[in-house]
Amino acid sequence: MGYLDDLNQAFSTYPYPLEENPKVAFAGTAGSYGEQAALSFFKNKCSLSAFQNFDEVFACLEEGQCDYGVLPIENSSTGSIASVYDLLSRYHYYIIGEEEVRVKHCLLAPPGATLKDIREVYSHPQGFSQSQLFLKDHPDWICIPYHNTAIAAAFVADQKDISKAAIASKRTSQLYDLAVLADDISFSQTNVTRFVVVSKKMKLRKNPSRVSIVFHLPHRPGALYEIIGVFSVFSLNLCKIESRPLLKENWEYLFFMDFTGNISENTLKNVLPIIEEKVETFQFLGYYPQYEN
Amino acid sequence: MGYLDDLNQAFSTYPYPLEENPKVAFAGTAGSYGEQAALSFFKNKCSLSAFQNFDEVFACLEEGQCDYGVLPIENSSTGSIASVYDLLSRYHYYIIGEEEVRVKHCLLAPPGATLKDIREVYSHPQGFSQSQLFLKDHPDWICIPYHNTAIAAAFVADQKDISKAAIASKRTSQLYDLAVLADDISFSQTNVTRFVVVSKKMKLRKNPSRVSIVFHLPHRPGALYEIIGVFSVFSLNLCKIESRPLLKENWEYLFFMDFTGNISENTLKNVLPIIEEKVETFQFLGYYPQYEN
Repeated sequence: MGYLDDLNQAFSTYPYPLEENPKVAFAGTAGSYGEQAALSFFKNKCSLSAFQNFDEVFACLEEGQCDYGVLPIENSSTGSIASVYDLLSRYHYYIIGEEEVRVKHCLLAPPGATLKDIREVYSHPQGFSQSQLFLKDHPDWICIPYHNTAIAAAFVADQKDISKAAIASKRTSQLYDLAVLADDISFSQTNVTRFVVVSKKMKLRKNPSRVSIVFHLPHRPGALYEIIGVFSVFSLNLCKIESRPLLKENWEYLFFMDFTGNISENTLKNVLPIIEEKVETFQFLGYYPQYEN
Repeated sequence: MGYLDDLNQAFSTYPYPLEENPKVAFAGTAGSYGEQAALSFFKNKCSLSAFQNFDEVFACLEEGQCDYGVLPIENSSTGSIASVYDLLSRYHYYIIGEEEVRVKHCLLAPPGATLKDIREVYSHPQGFSQSQLFLKDHPDWICIPYHNTAIAAAFVADQKDISKAAIASKRTSQLYDLAVLADDISFSQTNVTRFVVVSKKMKLRKNPSRVSIVFHLPHRPGALYEIIGVFSVFSLNLCKIESRPLLKENWEYLFFMDFTGNISENTLKNVLPIIEEKVETFQFLGYYPQYEN
């Protein structure tokens, strides 16, 4: 019952104010959406370290080299990022806040380039698919996939060749001195990535409202209906539900769920054990203020 | 009510046998998991066309250039592939079958290479993350991300440089004459991609058992509980549920759901309109036999 002890501890120090100028780790490079999320959450008052992948961010937290990690957890078009859920479970760390970043791609090229000059475009495969309506008007361009939009922009800046462009955020154009040939070319105006701010210890910031949990559910009829019933009884609002088959376990399911509502300390301490009893390998991931625009 | 007419039509020609040697379109290249899914579903009796992306597969179906399209719809670790759902909705086409492909990565290199020779490894970013435990033992290798595992293998074969390896399927090793330096290096033994076989018209193959639907749900408390209740009343078994926020619609939700069970023609014709009434923009995607190992 580790999480209930952690919850008691966290309520005893409520509300927990964020440190001044904390050390923050994120996965990505300068100009990436991960960096943008971290700067936005900490209102530019933090010292940032960039890491190549999610594992390294968690390792940095474990070694006490940073206070918080900022990681993408869900994208409005590609769904939940299971590896971050895995890491949260493996390390038993907690979500203490969230940030949303709207993905707005631009076409960037070295200064002096015009649309007519472009022959090759570099971006993450998602950058291409999210800009497909724009790219349809330029069928002769060769699209070369890169692991990361910001790295694609850095490469294009480095080449200084006006026939090469990158699809990346506007922020990278400033970082790498690139011209914006076309602004906001993303297919969906509403492509948003949700980031979570992760801490080694549970910390309850002021006015928490969203709860994240993850659990396994055996594949028997009615199991899910029972769980959803609990939320209904306590008038809680499910704002996210996602199932993933756990194939080795003969079609057991892993569920990611978030709920909101007017949640008192008592409600939380009652509801979580009720759900825990109905499922297998329950994990409470955090109780935190929702992102506000 | 187009889908009910289509359903009546499909039941009147039940069971629909697959054509002999049909024309099948898939997204990917020779040696890709998409090609593997198509060959496996049609038991090697089909004529295949490869396309670069999902849109092109649907365009091929629309123009009547092929009988079926084979597309990935869900991965056990990365979740649903929303763009395929989008295309199914946009075109009003139907799922007539499914196939599962187990992702098993190998380390491939030109003949003569040994593990000691390798300096650079090429693969899709997911190939790297799914093989991360193996790669941890070789921290000096440089991992270079490619858009596609099969294309990475083709590149390595073309270079004929024993310091370059690819992470890709065993099948690609045969296609491109590469040696298997390490077999089945994937982190998870259970990484499976579910593919769907898509047709312009609804066709009911023998012993259908799985139903796929997609709908929008307004964000009011209890809305989801009501829907799940319908499944419970009809003793249907939800085997997949996934919510995605529709951000422009003020936190409406898009739901992907699959259910199984002993489904009669009558049950289906009753249940679908009941769900349709409780939701917005309901779409029936198909009723088809489940994949069996």
